[in-house]
Amino acid sequence: MRITVWNEYVHEKLEEKVREIYPNGIHNCIRDFLLKNGFTDVKTATLEEPEHGLTQEVLDQTDVLFWWGHMRHNDVSDEVVQRVYDRVQDGMGLIVLHSGHESKLFKKLMGTNSGQLRWREAGETEIMWNIRPDHPIMQGIGDKVVIPQEETYGELFHIPDPDELLMISWFSGGEVFRSALTFHRGAGRIFYFKPGHETFPIYHMPEVQKILCNAANWAYNPAPSSIGYGHFPVPPISTL
Amino acid sequence: MRITVWNEYVHEKLEEKVREIYPNGIHNCIRDFLLKNGFTDVKTATLEEPEHGLTQEVLDQTDVLFWWGHMRHNDVSDEVVQRVYDRVQDGMGLIVLHSGHESKLFKKLMGTNSGQLRWREAGETEIMWNIRPDHPIMQGIGDKVVIPQEETYGELFHIPDPDELLMISWFSGGEVFRSALTFHRGAGRIFYFKPGHETFPIYHMPEVQKILCNAANWAYNPAPSSIGYGHFPVPPISTL
Amino acid sequence: MRITVWNEYVHEKLEEKVREIYPNGIHNCIRDFLLKNGFTDVKTATLEEPEHGLTQEVLDQTDVLFWWGHMRHNDVSDEVVQRVYDRVQDGMGLIVLHSGHESKLFKKLMGTNSGQLRWREAGETEIMWNIRPDHPIMQGIGDKVVIPQEETYGELFHIPDPDELLMISWFSGGEVFRSALTFHRGAGRIFYFKPGHETFPIYHMPEVQKILCNAANWAYNPAPSSIGYGHFPVPPISTL
Amino acid sequence: MRITVWNEYVHEKLEEKVREIYPNGIHNCIRDFLLKNGFTDVKTATLEEPEHGLTQEVLDQTDVLFWWGHMRHNDVSDEVVQRVYDRVQDGMGLIVLHSGHESKLFKKLMGTNSGQLRWREAGETEIMWNIRPDHPIMQGIGDKVVIPQEETYGELFHIPDPDELLMISWFSGGEVFRSALTFHRGAGRIFYFKPGHETFPIYHMPEVQKILCNAANWAYNPAPSSIGYGHFPVPPISTL
Repeated sequence: MRITVWNEYVHEKLEEKVREIYPNGIHNCIRDFLLKNGFTDVKTATLEEPEHGLTQEVLDQTDVLFWWGHMRHNDVSDEVVQRVYDRVQDGMGLIVLHSGHESKLFKKLMGTNSGQLRWREAGETEIMWNIRPDHPIMQGIGDKVVIPQEETYGELFHIPDPDELLMISWFSGGEVFRSALTFHRGAGRIFYFKPGHETFPIYHMPEVQKILCNAANWAYNPAPSSIGYGHFPVPPISTL
Repeated sequence: MRITVWNEYVHEKLEEKVREIYPNGIHNCIRDFLLKNGFTDVKTATLEEPEHGLTQEVLDQTDVLFWWGHMRHNDVSDEVVQRVYDRVQDGMGLIVLHSGHESKLFKKLMGTNSGQLRWREAGETEIMWNIRPDHPIMQGIGDKVVIPQEETYGELFHIPDPDELLMISWFSGGEVFRSALTFHRGAGRIFYFKPGHETFPIYHMPEVQKILCNAANWAYNPAPSSIGYGHFPVPPISTL
Repeated sequence: MRITVWNEYVHEKLEEKVREIYPNGIHNCIRDFLLKNGFTDVKTATLEEPEHGLTQEVLDQTDVLFWWGHMRHNDVSDEVVQRVYDRVQDGMGLIVLHSGHESKLFKKLMGTNSGQLRWREAGETEIMWNIRPDHPIMQGIGDKVVIPQEETYGELFHIPDPDELLMISWFSGGEVFRSALTFHRGAGRIFYFKPGHETFPIYHMPEVQKILCNAANWAYNPAPSSIGYGHFPVPPISTL
Repeated sequence: MRITVWNEYVHEKLEEKVREIYPNGIHNCIRDFLLKNGFTDVKTATLEEPEHGLTQEVLDQTDVLFWWGHMRHNDVSDEVVQRVYDRVQDGMGLIVLHSGHESKLFKKLMGTNSGQLRWREAGETEIMWNIRPDHPIMQGIGDKVVIPQEETYGELFHIPDPDELLMISWFSGGEVFRSALTFHRGAGRIFYFKPGHETFPIYHMPEVQKILCNAANWAYNPAPSSIGYGHFPVPPISTL
């Protein structure tokens, strides 16, 4: 399985507080724990690289793509967004993290204004309740995951109904949020995972790492039957 | 309830065969049976009108929009597509007919390449099986609807899983198709209905008319709570 | 529409505190607000009546059944449970309230041990977040409903995935709960609504009454096409 | 992974035609191809054994259970049905084949009269269309699987909406059927697969074997977090 971790990589360069938590960037933190957990082919890409590091060649060699972005969603080129979107339809797995809900890519895949939700930076406690203990992504996770301090997200999260709702988050300020969700689009599987505000050490938490490793395995589609039809009619199945 | 029926209105002008079935256009056929079934405020709009007849004012006064298009999807302006998309998110009902699956609008709402499916113009029999007899849109419909001759559509239909799968079609040539589907996007309800090829008198069939009348009632959201949030944080709910 | 409100009616007779809130029983409180909201045919039935007030004749004349039970689930006879179950499959709407999640009837309809969930009688605040503003049952409800004091329920709620998840509840003690849910079984529509602990005046709240009136309208299936097949083969559809 | 294949094992003993196809019984045919495909721990059990071969000890050592039954559903004891049902809720995978839709077990898990559907023994062609090429169970399966002769099943299949609809079948006589479906109940994953009439060599087909091997892997839940709560309240989460 070939993984690419894409990160906007702006907060880490601008803010001392974020740099302390992720000295090599969020992407390298994710890459490191994936490697420690047995994944062997993990590359990274960032906004500032040519074509944001997501050339057709890179995508063609990516089975699962992680996506973290926040401040500069609008600086991601429409061409790259279309390219990633097409690869998802063809079977590449996609894991969208935290504020990636507001990226051009995720909105295009959802068909909604998924950037819309309640939010508050108040360092509140988030309790993520596991409501699908049967699911591969929840393997090894107990009844809940407690994050001592996180950015608050609240419903209404403007998304279509997910294929599967795996976790619901509680926040001390009064909100709830659907925080671990699966979708599929074409032959591609998508996992949205809410936690990961840049000012808290979320991606250093073992339970979060466990969920994201599980998600990479789940999203990997080794032999996608990308069934497509061009703009021509098909003959009847009369030779059976 | 205020209804607008949008039709591309090209086939009817180019092809004698289509004109015979729909002398005033598909839009007026739909308008007529809606009026006969008790709807009182039914307008029409077509591609050739300024802004395709779908100005902001028209859309603001539309509760449910029907959409039929086929040959000239790409001639619908992106601006109008965005406008309709936004109104759906705000609570306008949308009923997408037949080849509308390939319209810019429907693809944008689905987040997939929903134009992709098998198809064949062979005048085959289509049998639509009712699998949700509990559903409001299926009220008064028995176990199946038989269409003597229709264009064949076949899976794989590249869509996200619908909220509800109401009917599955059988075609004499060997295909099946998910042919009556509901979705929601934001506060708007969407119904996709497969039948309606221009060379067969589909919209003259009483059962088809019954389903579309039911769908208009179902899609109507009289008081949409379009819950939205701008780009500012919300305070905690501490004053309870 | 003919409604029957079924109540166990035991708490009200045993506990002064409950009797103060519901002097004529929970069933009559519900009946009263349904009548005030325009429903005209609303009967009641209770556990202590012969056949628990749910004879075949009563059920045959019931379009929508409300169900409130708690202490004496096991005293409901299996025969009556089967009878109600069969009527749901045939198209009767069912609205299951609060601790009804643990009734024989609801467990039989779910196919799970739906009695299993976290709970605590601590008079905590419950905030119900509306996540389907497009839905008929949510008509007239804003972004949330706040219940100052309620029994706490928490996930994991052992149910199959609902057809639709309409509200998620937050509790001050740290739990979340899927608290307004739709299902269908056969031709019957089912709504589960979490609030309604007997020691708090939940069913006197206007927003709760609004939701339950909406739910009655939604669950009503005026002409259920209860499509069934006996134990004999069907001929091919060759006479088309 | 420990697999148990349960078979009623009656047709094979009564009918020469069936015995020719499955000389050692359907269960041993399934066991054989599982072993050939890399599964190493595959046991069988049949109706005639004490407790139908499904003692608590056997079930406790079973991770995935296959179920084939037809003529003698009612001879399966309620006690064994309850025992299997409980193990599914606790995380055992279950693969229900063909006429198993009418077993006590499946009906109890569905909460519907899932025995109800159209059927006809006419040796018609069944074409199974793949509508989820992204799904693990569909790995290596193309756009369709063609079964030259099979028993016909037709909608309406009285089930709740499945979690995932993987395949839809077409029959030459005019019917369609949702023929490959996933559900979950508690921590257990369930796969229903329609093909497998005893008079046709269905389980000898490579594509069918591929799907069932994929399904065994999919249904296996190595570490089910069977989150349960007894009948006592939980304390608030205040020690965080």
